[in-house]
Amino acid sequence: MRDILPADKARRERVLSIIRERYLAHGFDEIETPVVEEYSRLHAGIGGDNEKLAYNVLRRGLDAEAIRNAADDPAALSDLGLRYDLTVPLARFYASNRGQLPAVFRSIQIGPVWRAERPQKGRYRQFVQCDIDIMGDDSSRAEAELMVASLDAVDALGLDGATVRINDRRVLDWMLDSFGFAAEERPGVLITIDKLDKIGPDGVAAELRERALRQAQEPDLRPVDAFEGFLRRPQTMEYHPFGERQIRTALPENAPDEIVSHLVGIGEAVAAGRGQSDIPLVFDPFLVRGMGYYTGTIFELAHPSVDYSLGGGGRYDGMIGRFLGQQVPAVGFSLGFERLVDLVTAGADAEAQAIVLIHDADVPVAELLAHKTALIGTGARVRLERRTKNLKALLERASAEGYTGFATVSAGAADLEVKPLS
Amino acid sequence: MRDILPADKARRERVLSIIRERYLAHGFDEIETPVVEEYSRLHAGIGGDNEKLAYNVLRRGLDAEAIRNAADDPAALSDLGLRYDLTVPLARFYASNRGQLPAVFRSIQIGPVWRAERPQKGRYRQFVQCDIDIMGDDSSRAEAELMVASLDAVDALGLDGATVRINDRRVLDWMLDSFGFAAEERPGVLITIDKLDKIGPDGVAAELRERALRQAQEPDLRPVDAFEGFLRRPQTMEYHPFGERQIRTALPENAPDEIVSHLVGIGEAVAAGRGQSDIPLVFDPFLVRGMGYYTGTIFELAHPSVDYSLGGGGRYDGMIGRFLGQQVPAVGFSLGFERLVDLVTAGADAEAQAIVLIHDADVPVAELLAHKTALIGTGARVRLERRTKNLKALLERASAEGYTGFATVSAGAADLEVKPLS
Repeated sequence: MRDILPADKARRERVLSIIRERYLAHGFDEIETPVVEEYSRLHAGIGGDNEKLAYNVLRRGLDAEAIRNAADDPAALSDLGLRYDLTVPLARFYASNRGQLPAVFRSIQIGPVWRAERPQKGRYRQFVQCDIDIMGDDSSRAEAELMVASLDAVDALGLDGATVRINDRRVLDWMLDSFGFAAEERPGVLITIDKLDKIGPDGVAAELRERALRQAQEPDLRPVDAFEGFLRRPQTMEYHPFGERQIRTALPENAPDEIVSHLVGIGEAVAAGRGQSDIPLVFDPFLVRGMGYYTGTIFELAHPSVDYSLGGGGRYDGMIGRFLGQQVPAVGFSLGFERLVDLVTAGADAEAQAIVLIHDADVPVAELLAHKTALIGTGARVRLERRTKNLKALLERASAEGYTGFATVSAGAADLEVKPLS
Repeated sequence: MRDILPADKARRERVLSIIRERYLAHGFDEIETPVVEEYSRLHAGIGGDNEKLAYNVLRRGLDAEAIRNAADDPAALSDLGLRYDLTVPLARFYASNRGQLPAVFRSIQIGPVWRAERPQKGRYRQFVQCDIDIMGDDSSRAEAELMVASLDAVDALGLDGATVRINDRRVLDWMLDSFGFAAEERPGVLITIDKLDKIGPDGVAAELRERALRQAQEPDLRPVDAFEGFLRRPQTMEYHPFGERQIRTALPENAPDEIVSHLVGIGEAVAAGRGQSDIPLVFDPFLVRGMGYYTGTIFELAHPSVDYSLGGGGRYDGMIGRFLGQQVPAVGFSLGFERLVDLVTAGADAEAQAIVLIHDADVPVAELLAHKTALIGTGARVRLERRTKNLKALLERASAEGYTGFATVSAGAADLEVKPLS
């Protein structure tokens, strides 16, 4: 966890307000949930590995005996925990407040989450997530709206040219099925496929083979062989242009029409919603995304300037039902806020003038504040600075902090002259 | 703790952005600190009663033996806690980052804090605080800047006519001294005086007498008698107009010149900084403010529409030294964000048009999103709604949610006609 200093904070707030403004324009409504959720809800198996990384809040009012008893049942020490994502709180929020929400609810949720990760460069234990979700719409309209809104937000941040890598959990299921993997092997196989970017086809094939050998005395290696052959076909990695032909080419033969046309439809809708003829989507049959709760479309946001994803999401039609006892379709898109902040160029708010008002020590406070207020009245941001011997250093520091002008004031001075800071 | 639904969230964000914008204009810089601080820092005696209300975070990796041992030392269960105010984190932030901050640092800090209070109407366990502080300036310029900026922020929220009740801890110390209270009695006596608004002069006198009787076999009641006599003088409660004459009238004779002129100087500077001739301050010799860390000026924000304070603060010159090992003067003003949000009239953002785009079920997604994007391109906020049998109810609900117009779209429709929502 870290302190955020003024220049960074200003940039973060600027990025947030741009994202928020774009998502609101696209008809999403912002909500807020408490950062603390019930322990049992955070540890219900929905959060995957993140559950192990949760910070738990010590139950209040425990006496010595209760603490002693908890030695055998540590969960008794906590009734609350800090959220590790915004999806579990959102599902709980929707279940709690459904009566006050529209039939199709488009939410924006922006806020900090906590994970007790080992500290490493660029990873923080408190970081901001920035999610939009659509609940109550099982059509591909929802996926398309999420993507159009998110691409628009990324454009507005000056990061034009982003694309969405897309796949569908049903594609993965069908594909593994077609190679002969048993249904119960899928989760393990998917974990390996998810590493394709890192370990390549050789690594994936080796790991799948290893797993098969580990699990059976006389393993059936035919599914792995078939999958490896498929992985090595050149056309499997032909990503452009997005469309039915590319999707069918990239998949084994006889891919189900329904899923293919679902993906094609999303692509066409996103292009139309972007007002562009080429589809800013890339079909990637090996995109997995880790979370176990995804049930359909999955996607990640890519940008040519970086080789990591800037966000992602997917459809999770089963989760809200766990809280509500009634199935509600849902799909979400999470922007990688911390990564976006790093990519967005600093650039202060160009509109407002920022003035340093340099004063001698003997200027009466009333005079000084009258001058300050007069300058603020012109729309400027104004900071007082007491004159120091090294005026040049003071002006240079102010300029580096984004101030655009300065004025000096002595006791009894009438009007001030604002001069530009180089 | 509570969920915040879209209409409330929009209002909260609007209030926040107005306050932030005004504070930035006055030369303050926003920072952010982690919501979690070290346990030892949160329980160092600075937070007063709030320390008891802190949520502590369970230390990770405790084994059964460590838990058993903690039965006699519950503090061993926690290494972190949720902050209960923004002042302790600010002092820690300043001590950690001083080298990167200007000599006089004007901070804005806006964020949630947590207190395990008994749930009651209008009190929440997670609530937002909104503080500005000036560190490194021991002159009354700092107090005046805080007040001018805060009054400006409150004006910008449409709550004109606010005033600042002001006192000084040194006034209280001197006053109690002049009545003959011993220095060690002061904290207890101040706790009673702080109740003046609630229990009145009779209640205060009775409680002081009770305390004196409880503490000594043959108590010296002369200080209490003297204080009661003073409390009952009519001129003690003459609050207007603010200035030297009123301050001296409201105090016992021979009040120290230095403190009186300090207060008068703040008043004059605030009036000048507000560009108004009458001083928007009220001297209240019985204003105490609970926190033990205040060392000088103390103040509260009052508004004619409510009988509770909308914020407050004071000078706490000793606190940063506790973290830094070097004294740094500091003074802060905290706006009561949750109370302000309740007072500010809803009123949606008047500038942007908000349109409900009502579509038949058979409109192709691509067509629909092209229409949506075209409307967003005109600067509008646009939400899709599938047409329902009861169109009137749909339009009424949209209007209640702040939407200003609607359009309907059928498959193959060309241009849309946006009609106003009544």
